[in-house]
Amino acid sequence: MIFTDPLNQDTICAISTPQGMGGIAVVRVSGNRAIEIVSKRWQGKPLDQCESHTVHLGHITDSHGNLLDEVVVTLFRNPHSFTGEDVIEIACHGSTWIQQQLVATLIDAGCRAAAGGEFTRRAFANGRMDLSQAEAVADVIASQSQASHRVAMNQMRGKFSRELNDLRDKLLHFVSLMELELDFSEEDVTFADRSAVINLAQEIHDVISRLAHSYQAGNVIKNGLPVAIVGHTNAGKSTLLNALLHDDRALVSDIQGTTRDVIEDTITVGGTLFRFIDTAGLRETSDTVESMGIERSWTSLERARIVLWVIDATASDSEVKDLASKILPRCEGKQLIAVLNKVDLLPQPPQELHEQDHQELPTQGQRAAQLGCAVKSQPLLPQDHQPAAGQRAAQLGCAVKLQQLLPQGTRSIAISALQEGDIERLQQLILEAAALPSVGEDAVIVTNARHYQALVRASEALDRAIDALGMGISGDLVSQDIRETLHYLGEITGEITTHDILGEIFSHFCIGK
Amino acid sequence: MIFTDPLNQDTICAISTPQGMGGIAVVRVSGNRAIEIVSKRWQGKPLDQCESHTVHLGHITDSHGNLLDEVVVTLFRNPHSFTGEDVIEIACHGSTWIQQQLVATLIDAGCRAAAGGEFTRRAFANGRMDLSQAEAVADVIASQSQASHRVAMNQMRGKFSRELNDLRDKLLHFVSLMELELDFSEEDVTFADRSAVINLAQEIHDVISRLAHSYQAGNVIKNGLPVAIVGHTNAGKSTLLNALLHDDRALVSDIQGTTRDVIEDTITVGGTLFRFIDTAGLRETSDTVESMGIERSWTSLERARIVLWVIDATASDSEVKDLASKILPRCEGKQLIAVLNKVDLLPQPPQELHEQDHQELPTQGQRAAQLGCAVKSQPLLPQDHQPAAGQRAAQLGCAVKLQQLLPQGTRSIAISALQEGDIERLQQLILEAAALPSVGEDAVIVTNARHYQALVRASEALDRAIDALGMGISGDLVSQDIRETLHYLGEITGEITTHDILGEIFSHFCIGK
Repeated sequence: MIFTDPLNQDTICAISTPQGMGGIAVVRVSGNRAIEIVSKRWQGKPLDQCESHTVHLGHITDSHGNLLDEVVVTLFRNPHSFTGEDVIEIACHGSTWIQQQLVATLIDAGCRAAAGGEFTRRAFANGRMDLSQAEAVADVIASQSQASHRVAMNQMRGKFSRELNDLRDKLLHFVSLMELELDFSEEDVTFADRSAVINLAQEIHDVISRLAHSYQAGNVIKNGLPVAIVGHTNAGKSTLLNALLHDDRALVSDIQGTTRDVIEDTITVGGTLFRFIDTAGLRETSDTVESMGIERSWTSLERARIVLWVIDATASDSEVKDLASKILPRCEGKQLIAVLNKVDLLPQPPQELHEQDHQELPTQGQRAAQLGCAVKSQPLLPQDHQPAAGQRAAQLGCAVKLQQLLPQGTRSIAISALQEGDIERLQQLILEAAALPSVGEDAVIVTNARHYQALVRASEALDRAIDALGMGISGDLVSQDIRETLHYLGEITGEITTHDILGEIFSHFCIGK
Repeated sequence: MIFTDPLNQDTICAISTPQGMGGIAVVRVSGNRAIEIVSKRWQGKPLDQCESHTVHLGHITDSHGNLLDEVVVTLFRNPHSFTGEDVIEIACHGSTWIQQQLVATLIDAGCRAAAGGEFTRRAFANGRMDLSQAEAVADVIASQSQASHRVAMNQMRGKFSRELNDLRDKLLHFVSLMELELDFSEEDVTFADRSAVINLAQEIHDVISRLAHSYQAGNVIKNGLPVAIVGHTNAGKSTLLNALLHDDRALVSDIQGTTRDVIEDTITVGGTLFRFIDTAGLRETSDTVESMGIERSWTSLERARIVLWVIDATASDSEVKDLASKILPRCEGKQLIAVLNKVDLLPQPPQELHEQDHQELPTQGQRAAQLGCAVKSQPLLPQDHQPAAGQRAAQLGCAVKLQQLLPQGTRSIAISALQEGDIERLQQLILEAAALPSVGEDAVIVTNARHYQALVRASEALDRAIDALGMGISGDLVSQDIRETLHYLGEITGEITTHDILGEIFSHFCIGK
């Protein structure tokens, strides 16, 4: 369906490449005056004489005729462009100043600054893609993992649209069956037809339900699985976040209460996007700003699917017990991972053990036997973690006490957030806790809340139709529910839409796309 | 000069657009295997059959043949490309994930990841530009103001190179004159020739000196003029920075000591780049982190050319006096601007004045006469600033006291950082304090420290030559100094260079250019 939009008469322009400074940047111009407007600021081969899909080196000037930049211009003539209109892409030097000035001079020459997603909106309006495909463009751009990329690409390339069209065809067939029943209603042929019709409705309902159910996984794939990092102040949460992100995202210091804001960042582990949330340390404080941060820590914990409780291995038993009483009740229904941190700071080994270390390095088994608690604490101490024997004893002691506090089956790990090997083992634990299904090459998974809502409503309408069929209610009433189902599916592809809905959808797009 | 570089045998690739997410991103590939390597991952019209300067829609796959993205590919065949080699630019969806995967699959197919500036280095190596032009490419990209852009564009387009070539020709002429002298040295014709030769040398010296001297302005144009914002804690420094930047760059709260870090950001005012430095509030504190911040505030003040001292209009006299004794001695040789902030919070007018306001609005002159201190404080209270009469009296009182503290001729202004009109007046004061020369359309200004050093050395060598000429020293010794001058000028254009110098220069480039 071609959707007529009065705003489409303007010729629009925007910076299409990411914000900031780079080697090059691209400003895109689209509309029926694109060639005419760019020509006003262009010094080079006359653009109106250039063929589609050709590039040209030349200069762009400002409105006073002063040289702005040496640029490469690419021409796409309608309808063979992204938007279906005449499109000119101007690749300039990636200075932020040049980018701004280039847009300014184009606006001065007659362009309008494009709104977020306006190029894609025009592609939709000109029938180049349906609405779910247009929405997938934004998802492709935002994708940060293989899974989210694959789902978004499938949707952009029309796999979801084809499933919806398939459902649409089946529903129209359904309606025709109902009309057949109406035609023959005088002759009492309803019964046999109804059971076939109910089967068909159920089949369609199953597909819609499957799509709606995929949203739970889809949401995690798209937005990342939330992992809260909580613990006492100065337990090393920010250091752990930085190690997980391989970055210096959070400010780190020895001073308690350094983290005041809740810091969030995402990283892809094993193809899955995780959203790590570093929180302010949990302690009693009189600092107003810090208290606000602690309040938010609890909120973050509520939003999380996985909770990393970071415990300072050198902390007192009472401190850990006290915090356990606050944290554990809030972790119900979540995956808790206890992270015993700073094990490298545990007390030095007693003299005799220390000397033995120097004399002869015992095997892993011997050492475990010496310490006498190997079996119970095994999960806490991986094979590749070989601290000095004395330190190991302290770690084991600490670990055993900890396990008594935690619910059975709680995942736990002993680390020093400053040693990178530890982080890989922790990532492995997080992946296990996440237990996400893998996304197949051709998977159609719903990641969009709007689509999910429409599917749920379509499914409810179809439920009513199936109930009505079962109760032998008249075909024209059933038809009404089917038409409602069709309506909701049409909302997804954009066959049924309004300016408001389009405005809402494209307002979330980045400018320049 | 074509500089042979063994690394140029590789085919290189890099993301050329700014880092991060955007509508589209461009990955650039350059080298003699560019077409062959991209073809391995390309599904579309065979690239080896495509003409130069054409664009093609198609797909890029990963190394397993899975679809990575729908892309637009632009082909530039050597030598008609930026680097002078075969270049392919791949415009993909601007997801960070796709960008990374695209580079990864190209590397897997045989590309090498480009080092910073390597594309430009190849353009230099292949004789597409000289070294000062190549360096200007980075400056064009980094330019943030009209002045810095204009200077960098002129340099990139070869204006500086032409001046240098001109100097080179003159110096070679000079050498030929010296050789003439040598040829005729037996015949005692030196005297008349020497004065002509000295005049020529002086003329060349003047040009080199002018270029070297332009560096002081050039450095400010390129890096921004540093403006420190200092003052007592909670005087409103961060609010002022945000207002100056039209941004929410700095955290703002009513809590003293909110700003702990030194926050810097640049903005262009009247075509000039200013580097505003917000600093931690100056007060006695026991907070370790905050103390460190205050220490840095003093360092920032030292680096500044202009100091904005923000004074809370409601602060006590003793507090202001105390801080004046600390700030003023450190402002010698700098431009100080006193910013009387929060004038909107000064006490409400007494009743009778308040009523009078309602009865009849006095003219500006009448009101000033009523308050009896108009003349002295005029600079503090601009024409367009019309608070209620009572508040105005308080402001004037405050301002008069303040002027007694400040050195004569200190610029000052009364503002509320929350009212935008005030900010424009403050910007005007800052521009006045900066007193920078304007940059003409064709100005050649040296902005590069390496060029400046080479010019200084060239000038020194020429000084020696002129001295030697004056002392009647033999022409072959003078020639040696001239050759040294030529050598230093050749360093700027890259005629004389080494791998180390090139490595150092291009390591400061962004990757992808």
